[in-house]
Amino acid sequence: MNEGVEWAVHVCLLLDWLGSDEPVSTTRLASGYELPPPYLNKQLQALARAGILASTPGARGGFRLVRPLEKITMMDVVTAIEGPDEAFQCTEIRRRGMGANRAERAFEVPCTVHTAMRNAEFAWRRALAAQTLADIRARTERLLPTMGERVRAWYELN
Amino acid sequence: MNEGVEWAVHVCLLLDWLGSDEPVSTTRLASGYELPPPYLNKQLQALARAGILASTPGARGGFRLVRPLEKITMMDVVTAIEGPDEAFQCTEIRRRGMGANRAERAFEVPCTVHTAMRNAEFAWRRALAAQTLADIRARTERLLPTMGERVRAWYELN
Repeated sequence: MNEGVEWAVHVCLLLDWLGSDEPVSTTRLASGYELPPPYLNKQLQALARAGILASTPGARGGFRLVRPLEKITMMDVVTAIEGPDEAFQCTEIRRRGMGANRAERAFEVPCTVHTAMRNAEFAWRRALAAQTLADIRARTERLLPTMGERVRAWYELN
Repeated sequence: MNEGVEWAVHVCLLLDWLGSDEPVSTTRLASGYELPPPYLNKQLQALARAGILASTPGARGGFRLVRPLEKITMMDVVTAIEGPDEAFQCTEIRRRGMGANRAERAFEVPCTVHTAMRNAEFAWRRALAAQTLADIRARTERLLPTMGERVRAWYELN
Protein backbone atom coordinates (compact mmCIF):
# COMPACT_ATOMS: atom_id res chain seq x y z
CA MET A 1 0.00 0.00 0.00
CA ASN A 2 1.50 3.29 -1.05
CA GLU A 3 1.83 6.43 1.06
CA GLY A 4 -1.03 8.06 -0.86
CA VAL A 5 -3.52 6.75 1.71
CA GLU A 6 -1.68 8.43 4.57
CA TRP A 7 -1.45 11.69 2.63
CA ALA A 8 -5.09 11.59 1.54
CA VAL A 9 -6.47 11.09 5.04
CA HIS A 10 -4.26 13.81 6.52
CA VAL A 11 -5.24 16.26 3.79
CA CYS A 12 -8.99 15.61 4.24
CA LEU A 13 -8.58 16.34 7.95
CA LEU A 14 -6.51 19.41 7.07
CA LEU A 15 -9.24 20.75 4.77
CA ASP A 16 -11.78 20.24 7.53
CA TRP A 17 -9.63 22.06 10.11
CA LEU A 18 -8.97 24.92 7.70
CA GLY A 19 -12.72 25.22 7.17
CA SER A 20 -12.18 27.49 4.17
CA ASP A 21 -15.11 28.43 1.94
CA GLU A 22 -12.67 28.80 -0.97
CA PRO A 23 -10.85 25.89 -2.60
CA VAL A 24 -7.33 25.37 -1.23
CA SER A 25 -4.53 24.90 -3.76
CA THR A 26 -2.44 21.75 -4.00
CA THR A 27 0.67 23.79 -3.17
CA ARG A 28 -0.92 25.12 0.03
CA LEU A 29 -2.14 21.69 1.05
CA ALA A 30 1.25 20.12 0.30
CA SER A 31 3.11 22.72 2.39
CA GLY A 32 1.40 21.67 5.64
CA TYR A 33 3.10 18.28 5.45
CA GLU A 34 6.03 19.12 3.13
CA LEU A 35 4.68 16.82 0.43
CA PRO A 36 5.72 16.99 -3.24
CA PRO A 37 2.85 18.96 -4.86
CA PRO A 38 2.72 17.08 -8.20
CA TYR A 39 2.44 13.70 -6.55
CA LEU A 40 -0.01 14.96 -3.92
CA ASN A 41 -2.07 16.39 -6.77
CA LYS A 42 -2.45 12.88 -8.20
CA GLN A 43 -3.94 11.70 -4.89
CA LEU A 44 -6.22 14.75 -4.68
CA GLN A 45 -7.49 14.10 -8.21
CA ALA A 46 -8.22 10.51 -7.18
CA LEU A 47 -10.21 11.79 -4.18
CA ALA A 48 -12.09 14.14 -6.53
CA ARG A 49 -12.91 11.29 -8.93
CA ALA A 50 -14.27 9.37 -5.94
CA GLY A 51 -16.54 12.27 -5.02
CA ILE A 52 -14.78 13.02 -1.73
CA LEU A 53 -13.26 16.33 -2.86
CA ALA A 54 -14.37 18.85 -5.46
CA SER A 55 -11.67 20.16 -7.76
CA THR A 56 -11.81 23.74 -9.05
CA PRO A 57 -9.48 24.38 -11.98
CA GLY A 58 -7.62 27.62 -12.65
CA ALA A 59 -5.12 29.94 -10.99
CA ARG A 60 -7.32 30.41 -7.92
CA GLY A 61 -8.49 26.82 -8.01
CA GLY A 62 -7.86 23.95 -5.67
CA PHE A 63 -9.76 21.42 -3.61
CA ARG A 64 -12.50 21.41 -1.01
CA LEU A 65 -14.41 18.70 0.84
CA VAL A 66 -17.69 17.77 -0.77
CA ARG A 67 -19.22 16.21 2.31
CA PRO A 68 -18.65 16.29 6.07
CA LEU A 69 -16.06 13.96 7.61
CA GLU A 70 -18.89 11.99 9.22
CA LYS A 71 -19.80 10.83 5.71
CA ILE A 72 -16.30 9.78 4.63
CA THR A 73 -15.07 6.39 5.76
CA MET A 74 -11.52 5.08 5.72
CA MET A 75 -12.75 2.56 3.17
CA ASP A 76 -13.84 5.42 0.87
CA VAL A 77 -10.35 6.93 1.01
CA VAL A 78 -8.48 3.63 0.61
CA THR A 79 -10.66 2.66 -2.38
CA ALA A 80 -10.18 6.11 -3.96
CA ILE A 81 -6.39 5.84 -3.69
CA GLU A 82 -5.70 2.13 -4.07
CA GLY A 83 -8.56 1.17 -6.37
CA PRO A 84 -11.26 -1.42 -5.73
CA ASP A 85 -9.19 -4.56 -6.39
CA GLU A 86 -8.67 -7.14 -3.67
CA ALA A 87 -5.14 -7.22 -2.26
CA PHE A 88 -5.00 -10.96 -2.85
CA GLN A 89 -5.29 -11.86 -6.50
CA CYS A 90 -6.15 -15.52 -7.07
CA THR A 91 -4.37 -16.74 -10.20
CA GLU A 92 -6.39 -19.99 -10.30
CA ILE A 93 -3.43 -22.35 -10.24
CA ARG A 94 -5.95 -25.08 -9.42
CA ARG A 95 -6.77 -25.16 -13.15
CA ARG A 96 -3.21 -26.10 -14.09
CA GLY A 97 -1.27 -29.35 -13.81
CA MET A 98 -3.56 -31.73 -11.91
CA GLY A 99 -6.56 -29.59 -12.83
CA ALA A 100 -5.77 -29.16 -16.52
CA ASN A 101 -7.98 -31.99 -17.77
CA ARG A 102 -10.92 -31.42 -15.46
CA ALA A 103 -14.30 -30.26 -16.74
CA GLU A 104 -14.97 -26.52 -16.56
CA ARG A 105 -17.89 -27.32 -14.26
CA ALA A 106 -15.38 -28.32 -11.55
CA PHE A 107 -14.23 -24.71 -11.31
CA GLU A 108 -17.64 -23.12 -10.95
CA VAL A 109 -17.24 -23.34 -7.18
CA PRO A 110 -14.79 -20.73 -5.94
CA CYS A 111 -11.26 -21.75 -5.01
CA THR A 112 -11.26 -22.40 -1.27
CA VAL A 113 -7.87 -20.68 -0.86
CA HIS A 114 -9.31 -17.60 -2.53
CA THR A 115 -12.35 -17.80 -0.26
CA ALA A 116 -10.16 -17.90 2.84
CA MET A 117 -8.21 -14.85 1.71
CA ARG A 118 -11.41 -13.08 0.76
CA ASN A 119 -12.90 -13.70 4.22
CA ALA A 120 -9.96 -11.82 5.69
CA GLU A 121 -10.14 -9.07 3.08
CA PHE A 122 -13.81 -8.53 3.94
CA ALA A 123 -12.94 -8.25 7.64
CA TRP A 124 -10.36 -5.59 6.71
CA ARG A 125 -12.88 -3.72 4.58
CA ARG A 126 -15.55 -3.86 7.26
CA ALA A 127 -13.09 -2.42 9.79
CA LEU A 128 -12.18 0.40 7.38
CA ALA A 129 -15.83 1.11 6.58
CA ALA A 130 -16.64 1.27 10.30
CA GLN A 131 -14.26 4.20 10.84
CA THR A 132 -15.12 7.66 9.52
CA LEU A 133 -12.71 10.56 9.18
CA ALA A 134 -14.81 12.26 11.87
CA ASP A 135 -13.83 9.43 14.22
CA ILE A 136 -10.17 10.12 13.46
CA ARG A 137 -10.65 13.85 13.92
CA ALA A 138 -12.32 13.18 17.29
CA ARG A 139 -9.47 10.90 18.39
CA THR A 140 -6.91 13.49 17.32
CA GLU A 141 -8.68 16.30 19.15
CA ARG A 142 -8.99 14.17 22.25
CA LEU A 143 -5.20 13.86 22.20
CA LEU A 144 -4.64 17.48 21.14
CA PRO A 145 -7.73 19.65 21.75
CA THR A 146 -6.18 22.73 20.11
CA MET A 147 -5.34 20.93 16.85
CA GLY A 148 -7.75 22.96 14.68
CA GLU A 149 -6.48 26.28 16.08
CA ARG A 150 -2.88 25.21 15.58
CA VAL A 151 -3.53 24.28 11.97
CA ARG A 152 -5.28 27.57 11.21
CA ALA A 153 -2.59 29.60 13.00
CA TRP A 154 0.17 27.88 11.04
CA TYR A 155 -1.63 28.50 7.75
CA GLU A 156 -2.11 32.17 8.57
CA LEU A 157 1.66 32.56 9.00
CA ASN A 158 2.77 30.38 6.07
CA MET B 1 0.43 -9.38 -2.26
CA ASN B 2 2.33 -11.75 -4.50
CA GLU B 3 1.17 -15.11 -5.81
CA GLY B 4 3.47 -16.89 -3.34
CA VAL B 5 0.65 -17.05 -0.78
CA GLU B 6 -1.65 -18.85 -3.20
CA TRP B 7 1.13 -21.29 -4.14
CA ALA B 8 2.14 -21.90 -0.54
CA VAL B 9 -1.36 -22.75 0.67
CA HIS B 10 -2.04 -25.04 -2.28
CA VAL B 11 1.27 -26.84 -1.79
CA CYS B 12 0.67 -27.40 1.95
CA LEU B 13 -2.69 -28.95 1.09
CA LEU B 14 -1.02 -30.99 -1.65
CA LEU B 15 1.58 -32.35 0.79
CA ASP B 16 -1.22 -33.31 3.16
CA TRP B 17 -3.19 -35.10 0.42
CA LEU B 18 -0.10 -36.90 -0.80
CA GLY B 19 0.51 -38.10 2.75
CA SER B 20 4.02 -39.23 1.87
CA ASP B 21 6.43 -40.30 4.60
CA GLU B 22 9.32 -39.23 2.37
CA PRO B 23 10.09 -35.60 1.49
CA VAL B 24 8.62 -34.50 -1.84
CA SER B 25 10.92 -32.65 -4.23
CA THR B 26 10.26 -29.09 -5.38
CA THR B 27 10.01 -30.33 -8.97
CA ARG B 28 7.33 -32.85 -8.04
CA LEU B 29 5.40 -30.29 -6.02
CA ALA B 30 5.67 -27.70 -8.80
CA SER B 31 4.38 -30.15 -11.44
CA GLY B 32 0.98 -30.51 -9.77
CA TYR B 33 0.20 -26.85 -10.48
CA GLU B 34 2.66 -26.21 -13.35
CA LEU B 35 4.62 -23.74 -11.22
CA PRO B 36 8.18 -22.64 -12.00
CA PRO B 37 10.30 -24.82 -9.66
CA PRO B 38 13.00 -22.25 -8.79
CA TYR B 39 10.48 -19.62 -7.74
CA LEU B 40 8.32 -22.16 -5.91
CA ASN B 41 11.45 -23.30 -4.12
CA LYS B 42 11.85 -19.79 -2.70
CA GLN B 43 8.36 -19.99 -1.20
CA LEU B 44 9.01 -23.49 0.15
CA GLN B 45 12.22 -22.30 1.80
CA ALA B 46 10.24 -19.47 3.40
CA LEU B 47 7.72 -22.00 4.76
CA ALA B 48 10.64 -24.05 6.10
CA ARG B 49 12.17 -21.01 7.82
CA ALA B 50 8.76 -20.40 9.43
CA GLY B 51 8.68 -23.96 10.78
CA ILE B 52 5.72 -25.04 8.63
CA LEU B 53 7.71 -27.37 6.38
CA ALA B 54 10.91 -29.31 6.96
CA SER B 55 13.47 -29.17 4.20
CA THR B 56 15.68 -32.16 3.45
CA PRO B 57 18.69 -31.38 1.27
CA GLY B 58 20.22 -33.69 -1.32
CA ALA B 59 19.23 -35.55 -4.47
CA ARG B 60 16.42 -37.40 -2.71
CA GLY B 61 15.53 -34.38 -0.62
CA GLY B 62 12.49 -32.18 -0.62
CA PHE B 63 9.83 -30.92 1.74
CA ARG B 64 7.34 -32.32 4.17
CA LEU B 65 4.81 -30.85 6.57
CA VAL B 66 6.11 -30.47 10.10
CA ARG B 67 2.72 -30.28 11.74
CA PRO B 68 -0.88 -31.20 10.93
CA LEU B 69 -2.99 -28.72 8.94
CA GLU B 70 -5.08 -28.10 12.06
CA LYS B 71 -2.01 -26.37 13.52
CA ILE B 72 -1.26 -24.14 10.51
CA THR B 73 -3.31 -20.97 10.15
CA MET B 74 -3.64 -18.77 7.07
CA MET B 75 -1.87 -16.10 9.14
CA ASP B 76 1.13 -18.45 9.57
CA VAL B 77 1.41 -18.91 5.81
CA VAL B 78 0.87 -15.24 4.92
CA THR B 79 3.48 -14.17 7.48
CA ALA B 80 5.94 -16.79 6.22
CA ILE B 81 5.60 -15.58 2.63
CA GLU B 82 4.96 -11.84 2.98
CA GLY B 83 6.92 -11.14 6.15
CA PRO B 84 5.58 -9.66 9.38
CA ASP B 85 5.35 -6.01 8.28
CA GLU B 86 2.03 -4.20 8.28
CA ALA B 87 0.65 -3.53 4.78
CA PHE B 88 0.16 0.13 5.67
CA GLN B 89 3.44 1.84 6.46
CA CYS B 90 2.99 5.13 8.32
CA THR B 91 5.65 7.59 7.15
CA GLU B 92 4.86 10.06 9.94
CA ILE B 93 4.13 13.05 7.72
CA ARG B 94 2.59 14.66 10.82
CA ARG B 95 6.16 15.50 11.88
CA ARG B 96 6.79 17.60 8.80
CA GLY B 97 5.61 21.06 7.79
CA MET B 98 3.15 22.12 10.48
CA GLY B 99 4.62 19.57 12.85
CA ALA B 100 8.28 20.37 12.25
CA ASN B 101 8.69 22.71 15.22
CA ARG B 102 6.65 20.76 17.70
CA ALA B 103 8.21 19.12 20.73
CA GLU B 104 9.10 15.43 20.39
CA ARG B 105 6.65 14.77 23.23
CA ALA B 106 3.76 15.66 20.88
CA PHE B 107 4.53 12.57 18.82
CA GLU B 108 4.64 10.08 21.65
CA VAL B 109 0.97 9.37 21.06
CA PRO B 110 0.47 7.30 17.92
CA CYS B 111 -0.69 8.96 14.72
CA THR B 112 -4.48 8.57 14.61
CA VAL B 113 -4.40 7.80 10.88
CA HIS B 114 -1.94 5.00 11.57
CA THR B 115 -4.18 3.75 14.38
CA ALA B 116 -7.19 3.62 12.07
CA MET B 117 -5.26 1.64 9.46
CA ARG B 118 -3.86 -0.63 12.15
CA ASN B 119 -7.35 -1.39 13.49
CA ALA B 120 -8.26 -2.70 10.05
CA GLU B 121 -5.00 -4.60 9.70
CA PHE B 122 -5.65 -6.34 13.02
CA ALA B 123 -9.14 -7.33 11.83
CA TRP B 124 -7.52 -8.85 8.72
CA ARG B 125 -4.95 -10.69 10.80
CA ARG B 126 -7.57 -12.01 13.22
CA ALA B 127 -9.60 -13.33 10.27
CA LEU B 128 -6.51 -15.05 8.84
CA ALA B 129 -5.54 -16.50 12.21
CA ALA B 130 -9.07 -17.86 12.68
CA GLN B 131 -8.79 -20.07 9.58
CA THR B 132 -6.58 -23.15 9.58
CA LEU B 133 -5.45 -25.07 6.52
CA ALA B 134 -7.55 -27.93 7.89
CA ASP B 135 -10.61 -25.68 7.52
CA ILE B 136 -9.69 -25.10 3.88
CA ARG B 137 -9.11 -28.80 3.31
CA ALA B 138 -12.53 -29.52 4.84
CA ARG B 139 -14.22 -26.92 2.62
CA THR B 140 -12.49 -28.35 -0.45
CA GLU B 141 -13.47 -31.91 0.39
CA ARG B 142 -17.05 -30.83 1.02
CA LEU B 143 -17.10 -29.50 -2.55
CA LEU B 144 -15.09 -32.41 -3.96
CA PRO B 145 -15.07 -35.41 -1.62
CA THR B 146 -12.64 -37.39 -3.81
CA MET B 147 -10.01 -34.65 -3.90
CA GLY B 148 -7.37 -36.62 -1.96
CA GLU B 149 -7.79 -39.70 -4.16
CA ARG B 150 -7.62 -37.58 -7.32
CA VAL B 151 -4.39 -35.96 -6.18
CA ARG B 152 -2.75 -39.27 -5.32
CA ALA B 153 -3.94 -40.87 -8.58
CA TRP B 154 -2.52 -38.00 -10.63
CA TYR B 155 0.81 -38.21 -8.81
CA GLU B 156 1.04 -41.97 -9.40
CA LEU B 157 0.72 -41.38 -13.16
CA ASN B 158 2.91 -38.28 -13.44
